[in-house]
Amino acid sequence: MRRLRFLTAGESHGPALTVIIEGMPAGVPLTKAEIDEQLWRRQQGYGRGGRMAIEKDEVEILSGIRHGLTLGSPISLLIRNRDWENWQEIMSPHPRTEGTGTEKKVTRARPGHADLSGGIKYKHGDLRNILERASARETAARVAAGAVARALLRAAGIELVGQVTAIGGVTADTSDLTWEEIACRIPRSPVFCADEKASRKMMAAIDEARAAGDSLGGVVEVAALGVPVGLGSHVHWDRRLDGRLAQAVMSIQAIKGVEIGMGFLAAARPGSEVHDEIFWEEGRGYYRETNRAGGIEGGISNGEPIIVRAAMKPIPTLYRPLRSVDIETNQPYLASIERSDICAVPAALVVVEAMVALVLADAILERYGGDNWQDLKVALGR
Amino acid sequence: MRRLRFLTAGESHGPALTVIIEGMPAGVPLTKAEIDEQLWRRQQGYGRGGRMAIEKDEVEILSGIRHGLTLGSPISLLIRNRDWENWQEIMSPHPRTEGTGTEKKVTRARPGHADLSGGIKYKHGDLRNILERASARETAARVAAGAVARALLRAAGIELVGQVTAIGGVTADTSDLTWEEIACRIPRSPVFCADEKASRKMMAAIDEARAAGDSLGGVVEVAALGVPVGLGSHVHWDRRLDGRLAQAVMSIQAIKGVEIGMGFLAAARPGSEVHDEIFWEEGRGYYRETNRAGGIEGGISNGEPIIVRAAMKPIPTLYRPLRSVDIETNQPYLASIERSDICAVPAALVVVEAMVALVLADAILERYGGDNWQDLKVALGR
Amino acid sequence: MRRLRFLTAGESHGPALTVIIEGMPAGVPLTKAEIDEQLWRRQQGYGRGGRMAIEKDEVEILSGIRHGLTLGSPISLLIRNRDWENWQEIMSPHPRTEGTGTEKKVTRARPGHADLSGGIKYKHGDLRNILERASARETAARVAAGAVARALLRAAGIELVGQVTAIGGVTADTSDLTWEEIACRIPRSPVFCADEKASRKMMAAIDEARAAGDSLGGVVEVAALGVPVGLGSHVHWDRRLDGRLAQAVMSIQAIKGVEIGMGFLAAARPGSEVHDEIFWEEGRGYYRETNRAGGIEGGISNGEPIIVRAAMKPIPTLYRPLRSVDIETNQPYLASIERSDICAVPAALVVVEAMVALVLADAILERYGGDNWQDLKVALGR
Amino acid sequence: MRRLRFLTAGESHGPALTVIIEGMPAGVPLTKAEIDEQLWRRQQGYGRGGRMAIEKDEVEILSGIRHGLTLGSPISLLIRNRDWENWQEIMSPHPRTEGTGTEKKVTRARPGHADLSGGIKYKHGDLRNILERASARETAARVAAGAVARALLRAAGIELVGQVTAIGGVTADTSDLTWEEIACRIPRSPVFCADEKASRKMMAAIDEARAAGDSLGGVVEVAALGVPVGLGSHVHWDRRLDGRLAQAVMSIQAIKGVEIGMGFLAAARPGSEVHDEIFWEEGRGYYRETNRAGGIEGGISNGEPIIVRAAMKPIPTLYRPLRSVDIETNQPYLASIERSDICAVPAALVVVEAMVALVLADAILERYGGDNWQDLKVALGR
Repeated sequence: MRRLRFLTAGESHGPALTVIIEGMPAGVPLTKAEIDEQLWRRQQGYGRGGRMAIEKDEVEILSGIRHGLTLGSPISLLIRNRDWENWQEIMSPHPRTEGTGTEKKVTRARPGHADLSGGIKYKHGDLRNILERASARETAARVAAGAVARALLRAAGIELVGQVTAIGGVTADTSDLTWEEIACRIPRSPVFCADEKASRKMMAAIDEARAAGDSLGGVVEVAALGVPVGLGSHVHWDRRLDGRLAQAVMSIQAIKGVEIGMGFLAAARPGSEVHDEIFWEEGRGYYRETNRAGGIEGGISNGEPIIVRAAMKPIPTLYRPLRSVDIETNQPYLASIERSDICAVPAALVVVEAMVALVLADAILERYGGDNWQDLKVALGR
Repeated sequence: MRRLRFLTAGESHGPALTVIIEGMPAGVPLTKAEIDEQLWRRQQGYGRGGRMAIEKDEVEILSGIRHGLTLGSPISLLIRNRDWENWQEIMSPHPRTEGTGTEKKVTRARPGHADLSGGIKYKHGDLRNILERASARETAARVAAGAVARALLRAAGIELVGQVTAIGGVTADTSDLTWEEIACRIPRSPVFCADEKASRKMMAAIDEARAAGDSLGGVVEVAALGVPVGLGSHVHWDRRLDGRLAQAVMSIQAIKGVEIGMGFLAAARPGSEVHDEIFWEEGRGYYRETNRAGGIEGGISNGEPIIVRAAMKPIPTLYRPLRSVDIETNQPYLASIERSDICAVPAALVVVEAMVALVLADAILERYGGDNWQDLKVALGR
Repeated sequence: MRRLRFLTAGESHGPALTVIIEGMPAGVPLTKAEIDEQLWRRQQGYGRGGRMAIEKDEVEILSGIRHGLTLGSPISLLIRNRDWENWQEIMSPHPRTEGTGTEKKVTRARPGHADLSGGIKYKHGDLRNILERASARETAARVAAGAVARALLRAAGIELVGQVTAIGGVTADTSDLTWEEIACRIPRSPVFCADEKASRKMMAAIDEARAAGDSLGGVVEVAALGVPVGLGSHVHWDRRLDGRLAQAVMSIQAIKGVEIGMGFLAAARPGSEVHDEIFWEEGRGYYRETNRAGGIEGGISNGEPIIVRAAMKPIPTLYRPLRSVDIETNQPYLASIERSDICAVPAALVVVEAMVALVLADAILERYGGDNWQDLKVALGR
Repeated sequence: MRRLRFLTAGESHGPALTVIIEGMPAGVPLTKAEIDEQLWRRQQGYGRGGRMAIEKDEVEILSGIRHGLTLGSPISLLIRNRDWENWQEIMSPHPRTEGTGTEKKVTRARPGHADLSGGIKYKHGDLRNILERASARETAARVAAGAVARALLRAAGIELVGQVTAIGGVTADTSDLTWEEIACRIPRSPVFCADEKASRKMMAAIDEARAAGDSLGGVVEVAALGVPVGLGSHVHWDRRLDGRLAQAVMSIQAIKGVEIGMGFLAAARPGSEVHDEIFWEEGRGYYRETNRAGGIEGGISNGEPIIVRAAMKPIPTLYRPLRSVDIETNQPYLASIERSDICAVPAALVVVEAMVALVLADAILERYGGDNWQDLKVALGR
């Protein structure tokens, strides 16, 4: 990020997750409640395992916000891990006293995780030292950061709408719905899908997967409405908005593909069916009747909704065992688990939204400056 | 990029493209010939228009390399635009003398390009000021930078193999070929496709599109072989290798989708069919029998080939007109063109390879340091 | 920082300071006690006001360290502000309820502080929103981050020795002492000065300033011993070690000047008296008999001790009033205060040490890579 | 730099220096003549050796400027080395053919240069591979970049005035002159000093040093007039303007000390004599009657002139020999040279100005955004 920086920290079973966000302008309204709401959304979704009940994430604001307005100084947020008391010996920062803290040593590398490569890279014999940080638990910190970015977007008149468009083989069809209608229906669906029929099929698919000891991935889509023309730039590769979105989204645990607008479909269609014709009308200005580009041309936002899609692989922790190796003995073992999520696609949607929000907020600050909300409001013409 | 930085510069019809690459270790063998070879590859490919003949790109090395070895200092490369003499008045850096230099003013915004959004962002009334930089001509500078990164990869024992896997609706099947066989067949195909039959169909599709005044996109795939375990990191979102690859590839002109390994397919399959089981053998160490993850787990390279796929939209400059607007009058006009490429997917492949090379070289330097090739060689165990 | 990043957060009277450090290798020994020791040192020093007694800083480790070793993941540290309960209404993050939280509104801009410029930049009518973050309290977070960097330096065999060389007009002379002797004497001096006689005079000067309602600045010097050859680089301006040290040190509150080696004195001497001749001896390798360069030539460490010196201005909060303006009324007022530090030079020394430690750790990781301490140890030849 | 990036490249005896500057807004007037003027200034100054006559630097604009206005795209500048034809074999990028290109191999490490440390870091046996890049010749590229930044400052109403305030032991006194008077007198002085009497003494000192086979350093001072309030920020250490200036200036070859405002003098004075009282007047707004802070309080510009001072050590290449070692044999030798500069302080002044200009331009873009000059003009209230 060029203008809005953030660092997240925290192990899955450590005392807390933290995030510091630096670069927010002063004077943006922001409350604990709206951060908590995003944290809550991340914990919802049909298909989650038992841990979600333990967590109930809540944020503590440690800096950067006063009396409901951002100060312009770094915003520090803390999310406690509720189960910490049961882990404080195992995850203690303090040097081990004789014979303690080794109870939960992990030497079995799970397929589909960072375990083995991380263990090699960081020379950790106890793979807990990898998995604690590689865990999707970390995304709670990103969601908190994203809630801060969302506050800026909302002030700037940008709204994010996200939906789950596929789980496993079940695909939703929302082509006849407006974004407003989609936004309206999502909270009612346990899988965050606006197509009611598909929604039910998705839940059924999750139930089947659970019964089979398997897991499911899916596809999520985020639209950013009301984005001003001119975010990102064609002038240098690393300033292109599509590339910045792609990194932010692909960096989420379990995401294996990212698309803007038509995405891979654009590769299969002739040019005459891929581009968006440009029109102009008195009072309305420039507009398009289609949005195949997904709101970005030449690496720059064009004023149409920005459409980002991401493919999530199924959770690699299965009840059905996968073959793997114990790194202490190099002996094979069967990787399986007793309690886990079956499907985390709805949660991933919330994380994708957060990352999209952060990239857009960064691009706004890059384009308009904005040490404070008053100046930014003028620059944005609001 | 954390360790290897580069800036490109240059307008499409300006005097030259330049690129400066900072952060290469000293002592890496690198010749003009191998940079020129990549530039030459970018200009090949069935479906290009007439300009390719004009260009014949060649690099001038202005710094950072001496007697065939990198110095450790910034590498500066220059690629002249051969047609410059015809454009020097129009593109002159010098203040205009009365009545000159306005001949090729562009006020008609082309759909699918940066023209309109760029013009608004930068307040340019002459859209030439946008399109000259937004043009894919810029990718020649990236390919030159990529050739520098490739020199480091080659020294490190990493080989890149790229192939075109789809053009328009025609899809190749190379699932029965090894990467070595693919590498061997690519140079023989005018569309850089290892499936001979598909190759012919792709050319036919291009011919048809040309006849119809249309254009075609496609899909490219790059495999990086011999990548050491441990590039990238799970510890922070912006250090994950998949995210860094995604930004680099999505930032290429006309790319609308990026996948790692199975990509979107992983979203539709159950977990039991998506993850790669882990094995160990005396002498061979850890290995997988499948590579659905595309060589990256938890944001870290796992020693298997890294597989990146990208979707390119068809070139937006069509012979068949698209409706658009003249920004000076806001009157509609029909956007069409007399001379253009029909399909630039093979060229895009070379650019994707270049960007992948740059990201991997950066990740190697981040992991191993490496002020000089001798130290790096030891760290890499070569 | 290219390789070791950190963000600090926290207002002076907020609930806590936090810092996240990203990029530390795994496996470096690090305990709470050694971070607390640096925090303790920052609070010592003759000439401090009453607040130091309130604070007694202590760190909570929230992530990145397990069983006394770094994990390689981001390290999150929290330092509570002990006085928070008295400030929780005034500094509350939550929107104000009618008639509360305005008690300590600040509208009088203090000379020598960020108050006025910060208020204008961020459009804050209550200057508390500036001074809470601009306060030197923030340096506690830097000192904690520096303690993390010091752990890496210590493992790498690098030791930092810092001394106060001047307070007000009193100058110390330690030219006849070795660094070891200086290191030994510093903890015994209430002003962190190794020259016992000067030490007493400095305390007397502080007492006089207190009596006069005035404040004193001074000069601090930090030496880094055991630094390997080759940190930093001449190849690009922003990689030069001296420049990176200069930014880090000049960025500390109240620092107005930075020198490396002879510093300004070098400007007044002929070349023949400024440079360090080079010698070589079997077993000892290259060495110098002088160290006028302060351990850096051409932006690169040369193996001699790195010597950084910084000038601190006197604390601008005086008992003797300075003329200033109330920004609400634009009426003049006399800026004075009842309780403050007279001299914070010893504290500044600890902060300078911290920033030097962070820059050197960053440069080590840039040169040697080092995902884990084992690899780094090999690269460093330890 | 957060918003304005630049990379320089080029060896001292290579074909050319290049620089790419990324991040300039569109629409800023900029001509080759004004870049050349700065390059010319860098080559002036009493005390230079014979090479200056050879060079006569001139810039070629390769991108980013059209018809006298910046495009918003990266600006690429090229400065040819006039002597290249005599060096093309020695400095050739191409692999050496048997028995050529080794004529000017350098194995004697010069004291005060990057030679020895650079050779060790980059494992170069031929120290030419270090000294070619470490040479102050590189600063010509910085001066060209600085001229681009100056164009933005000028448009923003900011003027830079630089003066040499000391050479060797000779000190100028310009305390009774306004900045306008200083600006007026500088071009008339062969040593860029506004105090005529001191100017003559400085030349005499240079003549003496030449006769003695010695060299001289000095002190330069740059004032930035018309800087708006609010550049830089107190909220995070690396956003403080004083720190950013300190890095930029300390990174210049041979600079060993940097001061803002009173600098080291502030360390010796009581607080009552160091801070600037604040006043307000109808129509004039806030102002100070003194500027001891040098225009920066709390890391933020306060509207007063920004004053940066730098100490340059004497050029280490002396006619009088210094003892050193040949790295091939480890035998001692006497480092001396036949032709060199005696004093390069006036040239250093021009480089310091360039770096200050780049930092200020970067800070302006960070504060106000500014994709184009029209928007920036509004934001700056011009």
